Amino acid sequence: MEVILGGVTAAEGFMAASCEANIKYEGRTDMAMVFSKEPCVVAGTFTSNKVKAACVKWDQNINASGKPMHAVVINSGIANACTGKEGFDACEATAKAVEETLKVPYDTVAVASTGVIGMQLPVEKLRNGVIKMAPLLEGSIEAGTLASKAIMTTDTVNKEVAVTFNIGNRKVTLGGMSKGSGMIHPNMCTMLAFLTSDIAIDKALMQEALSEIVKDTFNMISVDGDTSTNDTLLLMANGLAGNERIVDKGEAYGIFKEALFYVCKALAMKMAKDGEGASKLFTARVVNARSKEDARVLARSVISSNLSKAAIFGCDANFGRFLCAMGYSGIDFDQEDVELFFESRAGRLEVFKYGVPLDFDEEEALKILKCDEVTIYIDMHEGDKEATAWGCDLTYDYVKINADYRS
Amino acid sequence: MEVILGGVTAAEGFMAASCEANIKYEGRTDMAMVFSKEPCVVAGTFTSNKVKAACVKWDQNINASGKPMHAVVINSGIANACTGKEGFDACEATAKAVEETLKVPYDTVAVASTGVIGMQLPVEKLRNGVIKMAPLLEGSIEAGTLASKAIMTTDTVNKEVAVTFNIGNRKVTLGGMSKGSGMIHPNMCTMLAFLTSDIAIDKALMQEALSEIVKDTFNMISVDGDTSTNDTLLLMANGLAGNERIVDKGEAYGIFKEALFYVCKALAMKMAKDGEGASKLFTARVVNARSKEDARVLARSVISSNLSKAAIFGCDANFGRFLCAMGYSGIDFDQEDVELFFESRAGRLEVFKYGVPLDFDEEEALKILKCDEVTIYIDMHEGDKEATAWGCDLTYDYVKINADYRS
Repeated sequence: MEVILGGVTAAEGFMAASCEANIKYEGRTDMAMVFSKEPCVVAGTFTSNKVKAACVKWDQNINASGKPMHAVVINSGIANACTGKEGFDACEATAKAVEETLKVPYDTVAVASTGVIGMQLPVEKLRNGVIKMAPLLEGSIEAGTLASKAIMTTDTVNKEVAVTFNIGNRKVTLGGMSKGSGMIHPNMCTMLAFLTSDIAIDKALMQEALSEIVKDTFNMISVDGDTSTNDTLLLMANGLAGNERIVDKGEAYGIFKEALFYVCKALAMKMAKDGEGASKLFTARVVNARSKEDARVLARSVISSNLSKAAIFGCDANFGRFLCAMGYSGIDFDQEDVELFFESRAGRLEVFKYGVPLDFDEEEALKILKCDEVTIYIDMHEGDKEATAWGCDLTYDYVKINADYRS
Repeated sequence: MEVILGGVTAAEGFMAASCEANIKYEGRTDMAMVFSKEPCVVAGTFTSNKVKAACVKWDQNINASGKPMHAVVINSGIANACTGKEGFDACEATAKAVEETLKVPYDTVAVASTGVIGMQLPVEKLRNGVIKMAPLLEGSIEAGTLASKAIMTTDTVNKEVAVTFNIGNRKVTLGGMSKGSGMIHPNMCTMLAFLTSDIAIDKALMQEALSEIVKDTFNMISVDGDTSTNDTLLLMANGLAGNERIVDKGEAYGIFKEALFYVCKALAMKMAKDGEGASKLFTARVVNARSKEDARVLARSVISSNLSKAAIFGCDANFGRFLCAMGYSGIDFDQEDVELFFESRAGRLEVFKYGVPLDFDEEEALKILKCDEVTIYIDMHEGDKEATAWGCDLTYDYVKINADYRS
């Protein structure tokens, strides 16, 4: 597997476009489209929030229908959540605009939105956006990068990843883009992420791989504990790589899963590091837990704790907060089995061992915690399972961004 | 029932004292003691965090033993959590100091600590504190107030409540004190709260009343989503009011429960309003839910959401965040049944009705949200059960306080 430049347009046959549709923002792009002339099999995972945005319901219908997919249209600024029938009609109107301009059936067009909840989308602006973008579709890396910028809200950097790998004698490419960066606490899925590949693969197998990998990637990040109404992850595959179609869990499936895991993890970590207001990537690695699920819950509880996040922001080696967050996670364990270490590129320091705080060097701790990527390493000594979760620190800027998000 | 001045010393036979023990803070009181010469029946609820402070384990043992209780000794500054055997020994040494000075058995003395996790308590300072406080014990209201100040950490105000009520022809008094104000997300109990009464009542009945009332009072507040390692609520009753001892759920039990509910709710609301960095009391009232538990979970999810709390701080009528928090609470409901209103003493405004956002007056919303006590009123239209939860806004000061708490 090789990491290459690019994102959603890296794979053969995928094109992208973006434009200024002035949906809510002015003076920046706020609409994007990803398109494949070749029909795609699709896999998706969606928010578990009971309050689902109209676009999530629209995409779930398409994914469940088993029909091929040709395009996804995304807007930033307004989330199209809590918008009733009018919101659902906006999804249909957008998809129909794609049908008119690009001659693919409207029920093969996914839509996704991100932004303020509880506002209606301006349908005419969406339609005009689609009409504007259709002739601009391009397979260049740059077109993909511009699309990844158009879907940003409070993100400070765009997020793209792409890899190539071989199946038999064919080169396969998989790429994607995602956006954060608040209301990020995915459950069953993440905020918005779109992956494209030219691989030839069975839909059910692709869905199984995606659902499994999501558990250890997008579902292991948190910015603020708030599970969004709009979380959507779509993976489209058009088969243009020409590999022998993957229809069972043989070697080729394993190679594909490894590449998919890499892309999902890389995008998820980018989202955590660029969490709203974040100054640091804050990783919790739990090893030697009784079960994989225990390890996941413990790691995620630590990186989700406001007090842990504030301590990381303040470079305060206040490790009791991590233990506290493990304690209320719902997982059973004995604190007398636990060892805690702080890690970063500046070093590694043990701070708690078998139920007792260690008399560690505060200067050394500060040096480690001042780095922009910090890990709390937790050895449970109760089994052999492990998991990693990624979050960010809680900063003044998080409060600033969210105290006045609508204006 | 009548609300009166005072707190833990309001009831007959209860005395309090406090002192500067220099455990971690300097130039302020940091130890308190509540004492009843008459033995007390006791009821308690404790943190559900798997990582329990040494003092929680100590108090659970006493409460479970069925023995009477005479005293509780509290310190602020260090939480005595994650401290292993040395921490438990510190509890015993403190209780033994009370035995020596006040001639009550050491296993009738509860201890409680609040402050930094993962530091050992200075045992000599604790012993000296007890020796200093013993001759200072007083039944005055002022002594109770000084005790409520000594147990504060990041609290900005002390918290006391007391009421009197009649059972038969006897006047009964119930009072208490509590402290917050971070790591507050009680589960089965709250941070530290100590209630005293001169009522004569059966221990099991008193425990049942306390456990039931906690669910709708202390367990319905949140400051930051972090369930502490130290949550402790103790209710001591010495019987000096001389009422006919309550041994069944008759009229007298009902009167007592009403008073207990009032005191617990008043202390809980004070803790929420004085949450770390808070500028506002943020209340969520859920009505017409399918079940009481549904109503509780929904209300608590709303006031616990970082994004909702940041919107309240910013006076931003971003009601979608409340719906989002309801949606990920795990409770099943249909957003098309829901109505949302903002309420404060400045007015009441509907913002969402049956799945559709309303075109409300932003000026009016701002006027309502600018008050220092704001309620989001949520009508589920799915049943007839209700619950209320109390939280606070998420502010710059919360981050400031917690980014550098240890120093």
